Amino acid sequence: MSLPATPSTPYGGDYNPEQWPQEVWKQDYRLFDSARIDTVTLGVFTWALTQPAEETYDFTVLDRIVAEAEAHGRRICLATGTGAHPAWLARAHPEVTRTDFEGRRHRYGQRHNSCPSSPVFRRLSAAVAGRIAERYADRSAVIAWHVGNEYGGACYCENCTAGFRGWLRERYATLDALNTAWNTTFWSHTFSDWDEIEAPSALTEHWRGPDHTAFQGITLDYLRFMSDAMLANFRDEKAAIRRHSPDTPVTTNFMGMYRPIDYHRWAPHLDFASWDNYPPEDQSPAWMGLSHDLMRGLKDGQPFWLMEQAPSTTACRDVNPLKRPGVMRLWSWQAVAHGADAVLFFQMRASRGASEKLFGAVINHAGRDDTRVFREVAALGEELERLGSAALGARTPARTALLFDWDSWWTLEISDGPSRLVRYQQVVLSYYRALWEAGVDVDVVPVTADLSRYDVVVAPALHMVKGDLAQRLEAVAERGGSVLSCYLSGRVDESDNAFLMDVPGPLGPLMGVRIDEWDARGPEFANPVRFGDGSPDAEARLVFELVVPQGAEVLATYQADFYAGTPAVTRNPFGAGHGWYVAAGLDQAGVGHVVRQVLDAHGIAGRHPDLPHLETAARVAPDGTRLLFLLNHAAEPVEVPAGAGGLDLLTGEHITPGRPFGLDAYGVRVLREDD
Amino acid sequence: MSLPATPSTPYGGDYNPEQWPQEVWKQDYRLFDSARIDTVTLGVFTWALTQPAEETYDFTVLDRIVAEAEAHGRRICLATGTGAHPAWLARAHPEVTRTDFEGRRHRYGQRHNSCPSSPVFRRLSAAVAGRIAERYADRSAVIAWHVGNEYGGACYCENCTAGFRGWLRERYATLDALNTAWNTTFWSHTFSDWDEIEAPSALTEHWRGPDHTAFQGITLDYLRFMSDAMLANFRDEKAAIRRHSPDTPVTTNFMGMYRPIDYHRWAPHLDFASWDNYPPEDQSPAWMGLSHDLMRGLKDGQPFWLMEQAPSTTACRDVNPLKRPGVMRLWSWQAVAHGADAVLFFQMRASRGASEKLFGAVINHAGRDDTRVFREVAALGEELERLGSAALGARTPARTALLFDWDSWWTLEISDGPSRLVRYQQVVLSYYRALWEAGVDVDVVPVTADLSRYDVVVAPALHMVKGDLAQRLEAVAERGGSVLSCYLSGRVDESDNAFLMDVPGPLGPLMGVRIDEWDARGPEFANPVRFGDGSPDAEARLVFELVVPQGAEVLATYQADFYAGTPAVTRNPFGAGHGWYVAAGLDQAGVGHVVRQVLDAHGIAGRHPDLPHLETAARVAPDGTRLLFLLNHAAEPVEVPAGAGGLDLLTGEHITPGRPFGLDAYGVRVLREDD
Amino acid sequence: MSLPATPSTPYGGDYNPEQWPQEVWKQDYRLFDSARIDTVTLGVFTWALTQPAEETYDFTVLDRIVAEAEAHGRRICLATGTGAHPAWLARAHPEVTRTDFEGRRHRYGQRHNSCPSSPVFRRLSAAVAGRIAERYADRSAVIAWHVGNEYGGACYCENCTAGFRGWLRERYATLDALNTAWNTTFWSHTFSDWDEIEAPSALTEHWRGPDHTAFQGITLDYLRFMSDAMLANFRDEKAAIRRHSPDTPVTTNFMGMYRPIDYHRWAPHLDFASWDNYPPEDQSPAWMGLSHDLMRGLKDGQPFWLMEQAPSTTACRDVNPLKRPGVMRLWSWQAVAHGADAVLFFQMRASRGASEKLFGAVINHAGRDDTRVFREVAALGEELERLGSAALGARTPARTALLFDWDSWWTLEISDGPSRLVRYQQVVLSYYRALWEAGVDVDVVPVTADLSRYDVVVAPALHMVKGDLAQRLEAVAERGGSVLSCYLSGRVDESDNAFLMDVPGPLGPLMGVRIDEWDARGPEFANPVRFGDGSPDAEARLVFELVVPQGAEVLATYQADFYAGTPAVTRNPFGAGHGWYVAAGLDQAGVGHVVRQVLDAHGIAGRHPDLPHLETAARVAPDGTRLLFLLNHAAEPVEVPAGAGGLDLLTGEHITPGRPFGLDAYGVRVLREDD
Repeated sequence: MSLPATPSTPYGGDYNPEQWPQEVWKQDYRLFDSARIDTVTLGVFTWALTQPAEETYDFTVLDRIVAEAEAHGRRICLATGTGAHPAWLARAHPEVTRTDFEGRRHRYGQRHNSCPSSPVFRRLSAAVAGRIAERYADRSAVIAWHVGNEYGGACYCENCTAGFRGWLRERYATLDALNTAWNTTFWSHTFSDWDEIEAPSALTEHWRGPDHTAFQGITLDYLRFMSDAMLANFRDEKAAIRRHSPDTPVTTNFMGMYRPIDYHRWAPHLDFASWDNYPPEDQSPAWMGLSHDLMRGLKDGQPFWLMEQAPSTTACRDVNPLKRPGVMRLWSWQAVAHGADAVLFFQMRASRGASEKLFGAVINHAGRDDTRVFREVAALGEELERLGSAALGARTPARTALLFDWDSWWTLEISDGPSRLVRYQQVVLSYYRALWEAGVDVDVVPVTADLSRYDVVVAPALHMVKGDLAQRLEAVAERGGSVLSCYLSGRVDESDNAFLMDVPGPLGPLMGVRIDEWDARGPEFANPVRFGDGSPDAEARLVFELVVPQGAEVLATYQADFYAGTPAVTRNPFGAGHGWYVAAGLDQAGVGHVVRQVLDAHGIAGRHPDLPHLETAARVAPDGTRLLFLLNHAAEPVEVPAGAGGLDLLTGEHITPGRPFGLDAYGVRVLREDD
Repeated sequence: MSLPATPSTPYGGDYNPEQWPQEVWKQDYRLFDSARIDTVTLGVFTWALTQPAEETYDFTVLDRIVAEAEAHGRRICLATGTGAHPAWLARAHPEVTRTDFEGRRHRYGQRHNSCPSSPVFRRLSAAVAGRIAERYADRSAVIAWHVGNEYGGACYCENCTAGFRGWLRERYATLDALNTAWNTTFWSHTFSDWDEIEAPSALTEHWRGPDHTAFQGITLDYLRFMSDAMLANFRDEKAAIRRHSPDTPVTTNFMGMYRPIDYHRWAPHLDFASWDNYPPEDQSPAWMGLSHDLMRGLKDGQPFWLMEQAPSTTACRDVNPLKRPGVMRLWSWQAVAHGADAVLFFQMRASRGASEKLFGAVINHAGRDDTRVFREVAALGEELERLGSAALGARTPARTALLFDWDSWWTLEISDGPSRLVRYQQVVLSYYRALWEAGVDVDVVPVTADLSRYDVVVAPALHMVKGDLAQRLEAVAERGGSVLSCYLSGRVDESDNAFLMDVPGPLGPLMGVRIDEWDARGPEFANPVRFGDGSPDAEARLVFELVVPQGAEVLATYQADFYAGTPAVTRNPFGAGHGWYVAAGLDQAGVGHVVRQVLDAHGIAGRHPDLPHLETAARVAPDGTRLLFLLNHAAEPVEVPAGAGGLDLLTGEHITPGRPFGLDAYGVRVLREDD
Repeated sequence: MSLPATPSTPYGGDYNPEQWPQEVWKQDYRLFDSARIDTVTLGVFTWALTQPAEETYDFTVLDRIVAEAEAHGRRICLATGTGAHPAWLARAHPEVTRTDFEGRRHRYGQRHNSCPSSPVFRRLSAAVAGRIAERYADRSAVIAWHVGNEYGGACYCENCTAGFRGWLRERYATLDALNTAWNTTFWSHTFSDWDEIEAPSALTEHWRGPDHTAFQGITLDYLRFMSDAMLANFRDEKAAIRRHSPDTPVTTNFMGMYRPIDYHRWAPHLDFASWDNYPPEDQSPAWMGLSHDLMRGLKDGQPFWLMEQAPSTTACRDVNPLKRPGVMRLWSWQAVAHGADAVLFFQMRASRGASEKLFGAVINHAGRDDTRVFREVAALGEELERLGSAALGARTPARTALLFDWDSWWTLEISDGPSRLVRYQQVVLSYYRALWEAGVDVDVVPVTADLSRYDVVVAPALHMVKGDLAQRLEAVAERGGSVLSCYLSGRVDESDNAFLMDVPGPLGPLMGVRIDEWDARGPEFANPVRFGDGSPDAEARLVFELVVPQGAEVLATYQADFYAGTPAVTRNPFGAGHGWYVAAGLDQAGVGHVVRQVLDAHGIAGRHPDLPHLETAARVAPDGTRLLFLLNHAAEPVEVPAGAGGLDLLTGEHITPGRPFGLDAYGVRVLREDD
């Protein structure tokens, strides 16, 4: 099963009429009409409403809400409402609340507050999901099921500890295997009974927080277990839905690069992926591009839904800047350019009270249709209508892959040494950014992905190398491709144990280097790195591996410290291709320089690599039509140099091949390329 | 009942002879004599002394202490001693200790450590207060009762949770009303039983601390409840005292701008206000002025007592600077200038051990009378003696009011969005500072105050607008006055729900503006604000509201970003007066410029607005005599321009009208103005 | 009993073959041979191995490990293995885990995790130590016993609370004495029953962490108690060992300047001292010198063992820099220069998994002998072999003593006021550094040490003055010596109560000054200090005492603030000598200037005071031979000016008296001085 079938890109978002008297609903739909909102996500936080007591279900209000949406001809993404449990449930069954990393059993409050291992929660969440599916499955307006909400966090209660032990038994079968995997002989930790194993927390193996652990093995496995435990929650509800609704696709809203959940392990269980895009800063096009591509990669390139984005401001940050005029539109089109087949907002009408009352909304507290934000929403609705089905189901034709790996993320960041300052996301983002600046389409894929279709595979901070990955990477080079990796890669096996061989472990033959020692320095210290090709020096920071070439050619060398003159960047001939290795934390210019060399070696080039704020992205529709998205992230207009021509689907204007054309500040063009 | 009747300004402070052998008492009184100390606060931490076991009271030592003070002719402010409970009480009744925000039940330690909802604590604290009143009520030396000490903090135990539920039942009567007030439909929080409601803490609705809550409604109500619960403790003791002492006034020492306690709700229950002045920095005259004026405003302008100040240094800060020579005197006179009818210190003799042994004291560990500090204390004693009763009962003749509102403080700072960096105290202080720099007498009053006597009402960060406040502010303008408010005002109703109307809600008609959106930026970003009158640009930071004038005149505009050219400061004609609105976080110069315009419109001007360190304050004695206090906060002498003349009560010198005169570094003059 | 008798400096370190299959052991010993590793520390974390269940001991593996070491002719430092308890123990007896400062009972995890007061832990740790001693005592290869590991941390459980009450009863006998010592009358804390006393923690007397306490007395005593409780653990095991091994010396590895444990109180119970040298930065020769000298001072100058150091990098820091080439050698020789009679590493082979897998090791994961690190280790092995027994048992001939006092450390840092920014280690280090830069040999000794052999006694931050210390310091001056002390000295007695006399208390007569008041400022503020001798101004920061000379001569004065012109440095003639006093936080140049004056007054001068990176240290062997160690801490070669001559024991080169000679970057010479 795949994405919901729709005639055009679904447009709308989270809508909570249960918070309002019915006369407000009428105003809402009048405003939805004027903004061409055709899709509403309903019921995300309705558990207390639909099940006001353990033995009572009451669908009076939800029936009305669904009926109203149907009556107005909207498509519905219907939620099970289990993202927050009701107060009565926490009182009747305290086990449903979580115990935090500090060992404190919480009491009723907030949302995303359920212990994933609680038998009561599992039973009742599945039950309510089943009831909702049973009741609304045959409504044609319901085009998708939305399970839970932004799964995440962690629990450390006794039920979770018991669940963890069960999970470990399944994984290791014997305590001997577990003791070996966790290297428990170190610090006298040999377990002689499964029940001796505790959830790793501030009260057991950790100090200074979740990243500082005495035993990486137990912490890594708990991260895996917790991701699996929440996946089980999702699967509980999905199974309950499936009993009543065999054909309507099921999703849950992901959060892009979200560390606690290994979305790659979840993806097979979703019919389609969806995610909520709240970038950490108000200037983050590459971060969003990476996140979109990661989401698209979850289901092998299948388009996804943009389930939430803010129409104007967030409220949850310390400082919540306003999206500049045009930015909401630009970012919406960026999502589509990277594979989104829906554009949805949180929230349609601003809540009156509680923690999101100042979160941006399509309709504000005064219910106006003449605000700037509403006008921009309406204008985008018009554009999406104009696009129609042109982009639906379209795929990205990438020759470059970037590996993203939760296991590497986890093990890199829970590692003691060499540097707590190296952060997985930042390393990955710097390599993605270099590709983005080069204007290259990229598939962001799991380490288990089929790599045979790519010319270039970039594997930054590939800390863990597991399964046959090393061989598959070698195969890429063998047949003429390039594999690019960097410092702190190839360090640990699937259990986070060091390889008993030279660093970078199984990547050694491909990279043609050996690393006996590594230096780490504070962020104030930079070591200049000089390229052999005469390009300007880059600066390296944080971690500096000392490379002993084992066949690799030296492309750049350190310029300072006792290892001045030794290699910082190398390229190793391997089969018909190469292994490239960056041994230190290069600055963005340095990473960009290496990445361009790799791309050049394969003749892969984006169109306008020298316009730093101009993003380009291609999608190929099921009928073979090629769409080219041009996105200007600058606050100034830009002149786009001559390229292929095509029809701008947003304006109807035809771009002549070989003729430069303009793009407004924050401007967007969607070109249906000429054949 | 009002302030204790005294022939002159009471001078002295907290005195703990119970810590010393009796031979030391003799030395103390000899030193008190030489410093003209006439008043001692006794018994602030004597509960363990006067009630050494649950069934035993023992007044032997306190009798001796009181007798010694009487014998030396001192006036006594007698404490009930309940600021810290005894160790035996915590052991016998663990319920008397607090459970903190993190959910941890504390055990015996520190002070201000009692659960306000503990029945045992309430019973025994009232009992000991009653016993003390019974024993000492007829001693003429006892001129005031000092209940508890610096009430504050919070408790989250089961007794408090139960108390909270009771408080809520009384406030809301029905769960429907409560669910509406807290907007519980959001995030599925509908309460179906009062017992489902938990105290909002780190274990329930909060993350990242007391300001980050999922539901502002419950957090706001808990703040109100906790303030009320401690007020009940005060009232318990006061009632017990009153049974034996019908005529002696009762107070407790407040802490100025102290967030946890809504002093406006407490004030009616005190016979007179008193407070402890420990400014956060060693250069804070405007902060102290605001605090004094707030304390004076608690009981409608009635003078207050300065119950504590440090003679030299504090000890509780990370860095404890020494008060420069003259500063203790200057700050003491500042208190009197703003309405203090007593000048008291903490502490008379330095404790030998524990956490305040290095806190400054009138008498140091060596018992010397030849230290700089002692000499300055003695000199001030002489001056106060010279002043006699001249200032007692005098009132401040202010035409300007500044609104201070705990509800606005709380709701502004627990709000999610737009910016956690906006702090209520800082915003209020910036407006007060502008008035202070202009040399204007200000009444700092609650939002319920009678505003009919003021020409100018300044309402900074008036986040919550409740009751008939909007109408009363309109009335000020209607009759020709000015009301000045600023960004983030008029946002929420009494339940912290957004007004379902344009921002600034009920202030909209008076301000003549409408705000659909607002931007927030980090502190490093400034938007220049240009005034139409050609004065220098100011800088705005943190929050920037986008103003759509609805009749208001534009006084200043933003100069940067997409909203460059739109209004940042406006003035709306309303009746015979005006509503003034500052839409962004202006710097001090900008606030000062707006405030001066407002004052100028009413011909209100302080005397020496251009001498930035020269403070002036007026008081009018009950007999109509007008006192003018001149305070030089600079470390250099200053020449005061010609003004009204008068007799300097401290030196006997006569200042000729129209003739300039000098003021020493940190100098003070108290002029009895010529008629 | 003293140090183990060995023919040369033991060389090797922590070795954990239990983590590896036996075929790896063979490789290890081959590598040990090539690096001249002659000593291995075995069994540090083997409790779970040797006692796999409460009723079962199993020495199969340890027997093999010991046999293998013996077979290869190594000397063994054999550990009892109790630094981490087994998982089965925590499950069977939860009391063995600790309760932390926040009041949270921990569950199984980490290491150094045992409650020192747990009867079960005490019984079983002594039992396993006894079993090991019984089994291996007669093996001649076992030359030392290593009890526990890096004792430290703290526990706040009920067993510890009960233990604390018992400790207090023994110390104070009566509650009256305790109430007086803790000054409990302050804040109503009078204890009327021993069981009312709680362990001082975040749940009782503390806020903001372990340094912020309402009652310094209880916190100080708990620090003392906890240090004693862990000492009792050590003594338990030592006694168990002694029952089977009367003659083999016993130690435990200390951590240099480690605040929680008062090593001076432990030292008499160790046969010899040993410590683990992990300097906080990668450039810290003076810090290491101080630590070495402190360790040497524990047992009155007896040499100690360097039990652990990293061959290359640590892993436990946020940033773990690599030791530069030559640095490991240099620091090893520095240890020997300061009195180390062993040079041992952690770790011999890098663990495969868990938190120290990236910690530097002699043998890396690939098992190589051709890494830089291995080669340096092997080269040092060769040098130590060349040295032979020349330095064993040698003593440092110091004329200068520096007092180091845990009680002063604790009370200074738990004090409320005047400044939390003053840190004991930093103050002490600045005075030590001045001596180090002057090239002077220093004994770092407890306040109870015999001072009669020193010309100069430096007592920085001697916050507490107890017993007859003041008299003994006076005796130093009396007979012509110099005593140098500084601000915040002489403040409290043994109970942390202020002296009821002028500051600096009992040091007043010797220092000839009186201090009535003190200022404190943030680190951004500096007061210039001008010396009377025309040398350049120094800067003072943080704390500024205002000195009233009582006979002392003024050497330097403040230049700013209201106390400009008053004394900052003084010298008081006392008997035939002097008391020197530095009243403020002078910068390093200022401290250096004062210290040089003191040294000059006694004609004490190091050899090369103007080569800032050249360290010199002397040791005198039992046969009277004088060894001079020259250590170049600079990354550049240095020319050493002419001095006494001698034979360089490392090269065999003879240094001619009166002739300059060279030292490589990070170079070392060990001169056997000519007679």
